Amino acid sequence: MTATPYTLHCRSTECNARCGEIATLHGSVRTPVFMPVGTQATVKAMTPENLLEVGAQIILGNTYHLYIRPGQELIRSFGGLHRFMHWDRPILTDSGGFQIFSLKELAKITEEGAAFRSHLDGSPLFLSPEDAIHVQEALGSDIMMALDTCIPYPATRDEVARATALTARWARRCREAQSGTGQLLFGIVQGGMYPDMRLAALEQLVEIGFDGYALGGLSVGEPKELMEEMLAAVGHRLPATHARYLMGVGTPEDLVEGVYHGVDMFDCVMPTRNARNGMLFTSQGRLVIKNACFQQDQRPLDETCGCYTCRHYSRAYLRHLFQSREILAYQLNSIHNLHYYCTLMAGMRKAIEEDRFLAFRRTFYEQRTESV
Amino acid sequence: MTATPYTLHCRSTECNARCGEIATLHGSVRTPVFMPVGTQATVKAMTPENLLEVGAQIILGNTYHLYIRPGQELIRSFGGLHRFMHWDRPILTDSGGFQIFSLKELAKITEEGAAFRSHLDGSPLFLSPEDAIHVQEALGSDIMMALDTCIPYPATRDEVARATALTARWARRCREAQSGTGQLLFGIVQGGMYPDMRLAALEQLVEIGFDGYALGGLSVGEPKELMEEMLAAVGHRLPATHARYLMGVGTPEDLVEGVYHGVDMFDCVMPTRNARNGMLFTSQGRLVIKNACFQQDQRPLDETCGCYTCRHYSRAYLRHLFQSREILAYQLNSIHNLHYYCTLMAGMRKAIEEDRFLAFRRTFYEQRTESV
Repeated sequence: MTATPYTLHCRSTECNARCGEIATLHGSVRTPVFMPVGTQATVKAMTPENLLEVGAQIILGNTYHLYIRPGQELIRSFGGLHRFMHWDRPILTDSGGFQIFSLKELAKITEEGAAFRSHLDGSPLFLSPEDAIHVQEALGSDIMMALDTCIPYPATRDEVARATALTARWARRCREAQSGTGQLLFGIVQGGMYPDMRLAALEQLVEIGFDGYALGGLSVGEPKELMEEMLAAVGHRLPATHARYLMGVGTPEDLVEGVYHGVDMFDCVMPTRNARNGMLFTSQGRLVIKNACFQQDQRPLDETCGCYTCRHYSRAYLRHLFQSREILAYQLNSIHNLHYYCTLMAGMRKAIEEDRFLAFRRTFYEQRTESV
Repeated sequence: MTATPYTLHCRSTECNARCGEIATLHGSVRTPVFMPVGTQATVKAMTPENLLEVGAQIILGNTYHLYIRPGQELIRSFGGLHRFMHWDRPILTDSGGFQIFSLKELAKITEEGAAFRSHLDGSPLFLSPEDAIHVQEALGSDIMMALDTCIPYPATRDEVARATALTARWARRCREAQSGTGQLLFGIVQGGMYPDMRLAALEQLVEIGFDGYALGGLSVGEPKELMEEMLAAVGHRLPATHARYLMGVGTPEDLVEGVYHGVDMFDCVMPTRNARNGMLFTSQGRLVIKNACFQQDQRPLDETCGCYTCRHYSRAYLRHLFQSREILAYQLNSIHNLHYYCTLMAGMRKAIEEDRFLAFRRTFYEQRTESV
C-alpha cells in the first residue's frame, strides 16, 4: 500500500472530531466535508458554478446510473466524467452496490457478482467487483468505492456474516482489479447492526489496504439510536491515518453527530431532494415553503444566510415559485439547501480548528429548538 | 399627450427596418428587441443573472397570471414586480386580454369588461379596462398594455368590426384610468385579417394618443402568408415616432420579417418552451436534441455560439440530460435559445446601423438551408 492520501490537520481535545484534507487527482478536499449527490452526471438543478458558489468541494456520481445511461464508454470518450459534466474538482463515485441492492427482486447476488435488471428498460445486466472498478476507471472519478453487498435491516447474525464475508472477498478483487490510474479506492465496512462484526469486517479491509474507509449500510431504516450506537462503536475505530466516510448520511443533525464521532466525509440526497419538495434548512430548523404563513413574508429564508437565494429573494417569492411549480423554485431552493449543508461543514471545520466543537454542537441544537 | 419615449437612431435605406431606443423608468431599451416571457414572475428556468448574460434588455410579465397568483396586492407590497422577482431592468406587462380570450368558454366579454373564471380554481373574476390599468400599476411595470378584445381566426368583417370598436372604447378608458405613475401605456391595434380595418383601428388609437403601438391578434392560427400580408400592409403605417410592437411573435424567421417591416419589439414563449421540449435554435437551423445522432456528439450545439451552454457542454451531454429529464437540461437549453434570440436581435441592430440589413437577411436564410 502506498502513502495515505489523508493528512490530519488537527483534532478536537473534547471528542473524536478532526480536521484534515484528502489529496486527489483533481486537488485536495478539506474535511469534514459534505458531498452533494450528482446521480446522473449533474447535481439536480445546479450548475457547476452554483456548486462552487455554495462551497462544494467534491461531488458524488452514481456508478449504477451512469453505467446504465449514458454508459461509461461514452463518458470515457470525453476523457471522463469531469469534462463530460464541466466539473473540474474532485468526484467520488459509489460502486453501484447500494443501487443494485435497492432493486430488490430485480437483483441476484452470487459469488461472482451482481446480476440485475435495468430500472429503465428491464434489460439483464451483470456487475462483478472487477467490472465495478473498470467502470469507475472509465468514469475517471477521483475516489472509487469497492463493490459491496448491502445488508437489509433487520438481518440475523448469520445473514450479516455471509454478506460481510462476501464483501471482504469482493473488496480484495476490487483492489486487485485496479490498473494504476492514480484514482483512490475506498473499502466499505458492512456488518449490519453488530459492532463486533463491523470491527471484524474492518480488520479484513485494513489487511487488504485501502486509501480510505467507509461505513456502509447505515441509515437504511434502523432507528436513529441504533445508527448512533454503531457510529459511536465503530467511527473512531476506522484507521486514524485514513479518510473516514459515512455513506448516504444524512440530516444536519446526523452530520454533526458523525463529525463528533470522527467521520470526515458524508453524502446524501436530502438537501437537493428536500429542496425540490419545498423543505428548506435554516439555522433555526426546517421550513416548509408552501405553508400559508409565508405568503406575504418579505424576509429571506434565513436571515443569517449569505447564499444567492437569501441575498435576493423573499419567502413570499419562493412560495409563489413553488406553488406555481416553476423550475426556478428548484434552482433557488437547491442552492439554499446545499449552501446550508456546505456552510454547516465549514462551521464545523472552523470549530474543530479552534477546539470548540462541543460548544458549536451545543449552539447548533439550541438554535434549532425555535420554530421558523 | 406627452413626448414620445421612442428615439429613432437610424433607418435602413433598403426597407422599413430601423434602430432606436425606448426610455423607461428602469432604463432604456435598444430596438429592435426581443422580450423573453416571464409569465409567473420568472422567465422559466432562468435566473435574472442568466437573462442579463444572454443579453436580455427587457422581459414580459403576464397580467392575467399575476392577477390570479400571487395577486397584484402582494406584488405591490414589495414595491412592484421588479423587486419581487429580483430584476431591475425594464418590464412590459400585457393587459390580460389575450389570456382571457384563450380561456374561450370560461370568458364572457361585455361593454364593461371581461368576466372569466380562474384557470386554477374556476373562481369567477372580472377585469375592466380600468382594472387592467390598476393591476398593471400595482405590478409597477415599465410598459403597460391597454386591455383589448382579441379576435379569433377566421372572423367575419362584422365580428371584427364589433370587436375592434370595443377595443377602441376600452383603449380610451385605459388611457383615462392612468394615474400618472410614469409607466408607459401602449395601445393595441386589432382588426383581424382586414388591412383597412386595422388602419382604421390604428387611427382611433392615435387620436387617443399612446406611448407606443402594438399589433395584436396576429400569429393566432392564420397562414404565415396572411400574417406577412398584414405586417407589410400595417407595420410601416404604425407611427414612425413611436415604438412598434408585434405581440406574441415568433420564430426567428418571423423576427427577421418583422424587423424588415419596421417592427421594434417582439415577445414569444417559443425560445423557452422549445428549450424545455428539447428543440434548440442554431445558426444553421433547428436541432432536436433527443435525436440518436447526437448521442456521441462532442460538439457544442452551435459552433458559432458564445453562450454559457455552448462554451461548456456538448450535444452528447445535453442529450443525456434531456433523456434523463434533468432540470439542468431545461436550464442549459433555455440559456442557449434565449441567447440565440437576443443575439439575432443584436445582429439585426448592427446590420441596420451599418445599413446592410438586406444582406444580413439573405445570409440568415442561406445558413438555415443546411441541416444540423
